[in-house]
Amino acid sequence: MKKVRAAIVGYGNIGKYVLDALIAAPEFEVAGVVRRNGAADKPAELAQYDVVKDIKELKDVDVAILCTPTRSVESYAKEILALGINTVDSFDIHTGIVDLRRELGAVAKANNSVAVISAGWDPGSDSVVRTLLEAIAPKGITYTNFGPGMSMGHTVAVKAVPGVKAALSMTIPTGTGIHRRMVYIELEDGYKFEEVAHAIKTDAYFINDETHVTQVPCVDDLLDMGHGVNLTRKGVSGQTQNQLFEFNMCINNPALTAQVLICVARASMLQKPGCYTMIEIPMIDLLYGDREEFIAHLV
Amino acid sequence: MKKVRAAIVGYGNIGKYVLDALIAAPEFEVAGVVRRNGAADKPAELAQYDVVKDIKELKDVDVAILCTPTRSVESYAKEILALGINTVDSFDIHTGIVDLRRELGAVAKANNSVAVISAGWDPGSDSVVRTLLEAIAPKGITYTNFGPGMSMGHTVAVKAVPGVKAALSMTIPTGTGIHRRMVYIELEDGYKFEEVAHAIKTDAYFINDETHVTQVPCVDDLLDMGHGVNLTRKGVSGQTQNQLFEFNMCINNPALTAQVLICVARASMLQKPGCYTMIEIPMIDLLYGDREEFIAHLV
Repeated sequence: MKKVRAAIVGYGNIGKYVLDALIAAPEFEVAGVVRRNGAADKPAELAQYDVVKDIKELKDVDVAILCTPTRSVESYAKEILALGINTVDSFDIHTGIVDLRRELGAVAKANNSVAVISAGWDPGSDSVVRTLLEAIAPKGITYTNFGPGMSMGHTVAVKAVPGVKAALSMTIPTGTGIHRRMVYIELEDGYKFEEVAHAIKTDAYFINDETHVTQVPCVDDLLDMGHGVNLTRKGVSGQTQNQLFEFNMCINNPALTAQVLICVARASMLQKPGCYTMIEIPMIDLLYGDREEFIAHLV
Repeated sequence: MKKVRAAIVGYGNIGKYVLDALIAAPEFEVAGVVRRNGAADKPAELAQYDVVKDIKELKDVDVAILCTPTRSVESYAKEILALGINTVDSFDIHTGIVDLRRELGAVAKANNSVAVISAGWDPGSDSVVRTLLEAIAPKGITYTNFGPGMSMGHTVAVKAVPGVKAALSMTIPTGTGIHRRMVYIELEDGYKFEEVAHAIKTDAYFINDETHVTQVPCVDDLLDMGHGVNLTRKGVSGQTQNQLFEFNMCINNPALTAQVLICVARASMLQKPGCYTMIEIPMIDLLYGDREEFIAHLV
C-alpha cells in the first residue's frame, strides 16, 4: 500500500502530538519535519526523521500539517498549496475563517491542491456538532461553554502586564456561554500584587469577564493540558418546541487537536481542489478503512 | 425562488410531523400526500393539499419523504427513484442498511436520482456523532444508551402476546448500552396476569433484558412521545488515553425524525446520483441559507 506522506510544519506542542498521532495512523508515514532551525538541536524523538528548514527539501509530500502559530497559517499554507501539496491547519481566529477560506481556496484551485482549515476542536469538531444541531433544531440558541482549561490567548495577555513573571489564565464555564477567568501569577520583585492584579482586570482581554487574580509561588506547578467543552442547544424541530441537546468533552487539548488534524489530512486526499472547513466534509472521510464496514458499524 | 417540491409518502405519526416541518422550512412546498386510501377520509389539516394513492398523480415532485413502515421503504424507494425523484427515509433496521444502500444506489444511479437512507435520529444524527467521535478518538468504546422512551418494536411484540389488550414497552438506559424494559399492559378478560407476564419475559424480544411487567387500567394514559439518548465514548487520540466524550438528547421522537428527514431532503438536492447515509453528506448541506454565513457563524 502506498502510504500518505505527511510533513509536520512547526514542532511545538501541537507538532509533537501530531507526530504521535501520525505514528498511530495506519496509512500515514512521516515525510519529515519543518522547523525554523532545521536539524540544529534536533530532539531525540526526531532522530529517524528528516528535519529541514524548508518543505521543498522533503521528498514526495502529499499533505503538510501546519502546527505553526495561527497568525502564520495563511502565509505557510499559500506557499505550500502553490507547490501542489495539500495543507491542514487549526486556524482559530473565528472572525478570520471566511477570509482565510477564500484566500486559500483560490490558491488551492489554481494549483490542484486541497486545504482544510480551522480543524481542531473549536473551531473543528465542535463546529460539526453545532452545525448538526442547528440543522435538526433550526430555531433556538446554542451555547458553547469552554473549560475548565488553560486559555493560551489570555495567558499571553497576562504575561504582557508589567510585574508578571509567569502566568496562567484558566477559563471556567459558568453556563450560557459566559466564562470566569481564574488568573494565577508569579510576581516580579519590586511590584505590588494589588496594582498588578488591577492592571490585569482592566486589560481589554479581561475587563468584560469576571476575573480573579491569585499570586502563587510557582505557576509551572499548576499547568495541565486538559480542557473541556459543554455545548448545549435548546430549540425547535419543525414546530415542536423544547428539543434539548448537549455535547460534552473532557480531553487533552493538544492531543485532540493533533488527532483532528490527522483526520482532515486523510480527508484532504479525497476532496476536489479547493478550501474546506470541517462542516463541508462528509464525516466518513475522516476515517481510514472500508466504507461499507463503517456504515454497517456506525450508522 | 423556485421551491423544492416534496411529497409526503405515508401519513401516520411521522408523516404528520413531516408536514409541520415542511411548512416551517423556507424553501420547501408540499407537492402532496400519498396515502393508501387516497383522498378518502382526508384529515382537516390536509384540506389544501393534493392527497392521492400514487405519487405519479402529483406534479413536479423533487423529493419524496418516505414515512411508511421501515419494511416498506425499499419497495417504495425503488419505485420512486426509478421515476427520477429523490427519496429520503428513516429506515431503522441497523443490520439492513448496507444492503439497502447498495440496492437503492444502483436504482438511483441508473435513474439520475438521489436516495438518503436511515436518516432519523438513530440511525441518523446519532450516527454522525458516533462517526465524528470514532474519528477523533480512533481507539476506544462507544456506548449508545436509549431512553427513557417508548420502543415501538418492543411494544408491538408485547401486543402480540395472548391476553394483552393494550401495551407500552419503555426503554430505560442503565448505562454501557444495557437497557431495562418497563412493560405496561392492560389485561384481556379471562387471562391471569402472572402467566401473561411470564410469556412476555420469555419472548425473544425480552428474554435477554431485565424486564418488569406492570398491569395498568389504561395504557393510553401513559403514552408520551418523548425519548432520549446518552451516547458516550472514552478513547485514545493519537497515543493519549482517556479522552472523554458525551452526547445527550431529550426530544420529541417523531418531531426530531421529521426534521432530520427535511434536512436530508434538502441535502439530496446537492448530491450526485446515488444512495447516501448521513455520514456520507457534509453537515453544511443540511442547512438552508448562505454557506459563507454558516461558516462565519458555526465554524
